[in-house]
Amino acid sequence: MTVGVRKENITIVLNKPKYPGNIGSVARCAKNMGIENVIVVGSPPADREKILQLATHGAADVVDGVRRFDDLGEALSGFNYVVGTTSRLGRARRPSLHPRELAAELVDLSQNNEVALLFGPEDFGLTNDEIRYCHALVTIPTAEAMKSINLSHAVMIICYEIFLAGRGDREIFTPKLATVRELEGMYGQIQALLTRVDFISPGDADHRMMNIRRFLSRVKLYSREVRVIRGVCRQLDWYYGRNKKT
Amino acid sequence: MTVGVRKENITIVLNKPKYPGNIGSVARCAKNMGIENVIVVGSPPADREKILQLATHGAADVVDGVRRFDDLGEALSGFNYVVGTTSRLGRARRPSLHPRELAAELVDLSQNNEVALLFGPEDFGLTNDEIRYCHALVTIPTAEAMKSINLSHAVMIICYEIFLAGRGDREIFTPKLATVRELEGMYGQIQALLTRVDFISPGDADHRMMNIRRFLSRVKLYSREVRVIRGVCRQLDWYYGRNKKT
Repeated sequence: MTVGVRKENITIVLNKPKYPGNIGSVARCAKNMGIENVIVVGSPPADREKILQLATHGAADVVDGVRRFDDLGEALSGFNYVVGTTSRLGRARRPSLHPRELAAELVDLSQNNEVALLFGPEDFGLTNDEIRYCHALVTIPTAEAMKSINLSHAVMIICYEIFLAGRGDREIFTPKLATVRELEGMYGQIQALLTRVDFISPGDADHRMMNIRRFLSRVKLYSREVRVIRGVCRQLDWYYGRNKKT
Repeated sequence: MTVGVRKENITIVLNKPKYPGNIGSVARCAKNMGIENVIVVGSPPADREKILQLATHGAADVVDGVRRFDDLGEALSGFNYVVGTTSRLGRARRPSLHPRELAAELVDLSQNNEVALLFGPEDFGLTNDEIRYCHALVTIPTAEAMKSINLSHAVMIICYEIFLAGRGDREIFTPKLATVRELEGMYGQIQALLTRVDFISPGDADHRMMNIRRFLSRVKLYSREVRVIRGVCRQLDWYYGRNKKT
C-alpha cells in the first residue's frame, strides 16, 4: 500500500487575494487534487456568484466552506507547518523547495500535523513580514522569459504535486510540530529577553529577529522543544533579575 | 548534461475554445513553462483586449503570435506527433499516459519532431472524431470528487511536466554547513553560559546538553548560524558580567 499526503490536513491559505474569481478558481483546482480546505485572509467578503462562476458547481461546497480571517497571524495560529509560495528569490529570502520536494516532505509531515500552504496576493506575493510565519518556502520553476504565474495556476501545480506524492508503506515517526501560536509566544519571549540584554535594539529588532526566525523555522521545532527554549529564556530572565545591580 | 524537451518544437493546440480569456490564460501558462507556440482552431476571432487581460503584458507576444485555423485536420497537418488530452476514459478510448510519462516520452520525440498538444473545448473536451488524429492520449489524474479541470489549468500541468522533463540538473543552493570544530566551540560556550545561570548543574549537565545537542544537530547548522548563536551567548554572558551584584 502506498501512503500519500493526508489531504484533510492540508489547507490553502490565500492572503489578501484581489479578485473574487481567483478564489473560485483556487477552490476548483484544490478540489481537483483532493484538497478541500481553503482560508481567505484580509479580503472583503466577495460576491458569491462571482466566485462560483469560476469554481463551477462542482466546487461549490469548497467555496461555501471557505473560512475568513482579518489577520494572518490569527489565521495561521493553529497550524503546525506553514509553507510560503514565492517567485522572488531575493537577497533576504531563504533557500526554497521545489514543488516536488515539498510534496515528498508533506507525505510524512501531513500525517499528524496541520499544514498551511500560504499564497500572497496576485500582484506582489508575500511580503517579508508575512514570510516570517513560514517554516519552508516553495518556488515553482519557470522559464526566464515569464516568471509571473497566475495565483490559481500556482495553486494547481502545488496541489497536483501533493496529489501525486506518495511513499511505500514504511513505518514513520513524525513528532507533533509546534503550532504557530506556540512559536509566536516563544519568539515574543526571545525578543523580550534579547532586548533586555541589549542584543537587539528597537532599530534592528526586525532584522535580528528575522535571522532568528529564519534559523528556528528551518528546524521544524517540536512542541517539546519550544517548551525547552522558553524554559531557558525564563531562566536567563530570572537570573538576570536576581543578580541585577540595584 | 541532461537533454530536455525541445520546447520550440511543442505547440499548444486549442480546439474550439469558448472563452477568449482562456486563450490568454493558456498563453501565459505556456510561456511560464517555456512554450510559446499556440494554435486556436474553429473559434471566431476574439477580442484582443479580453485575451490580453488574462495573458498579461508578459505573454502578449505569445498572444499576438497565435495562429488560427478553421479546420482541425488542417491545423494539425504539419505535425509529426499529436497528443490529445482527455479526462474521460470511456469505452472508445485508448490507454492514456500520465503527464509525467508523456513528458519523459517527449524528451526524445521532440528533438526532431513537431509535437502538438491538443486540448478540446472547456465543456466537453475532445470528441472521438477529433481523437482520431492523436498518436497518444494523456490524462491528468484527479480526485474522484472533482474530475473536471479548467482548460488553462490542464494546459499548465502538462506544460509544467514538460518544462521539468526538459531541464538539466537544476542548480541547488546549499549553504556551507558548520564544521565539527565550530559546533563544539558553540556547545562549550552554551554549556558555560547555562551553567553560569544555573540552568544546568554539574549533576545533570550531560543530560541537559545531550538534549540541546540532539536538537541542534537535527538542524544541520550553517556556519553563519553558529556565529549568530555564539554572538547571542557572548552578549548574554557579557551583560550578566556587567550587571552582576558585587
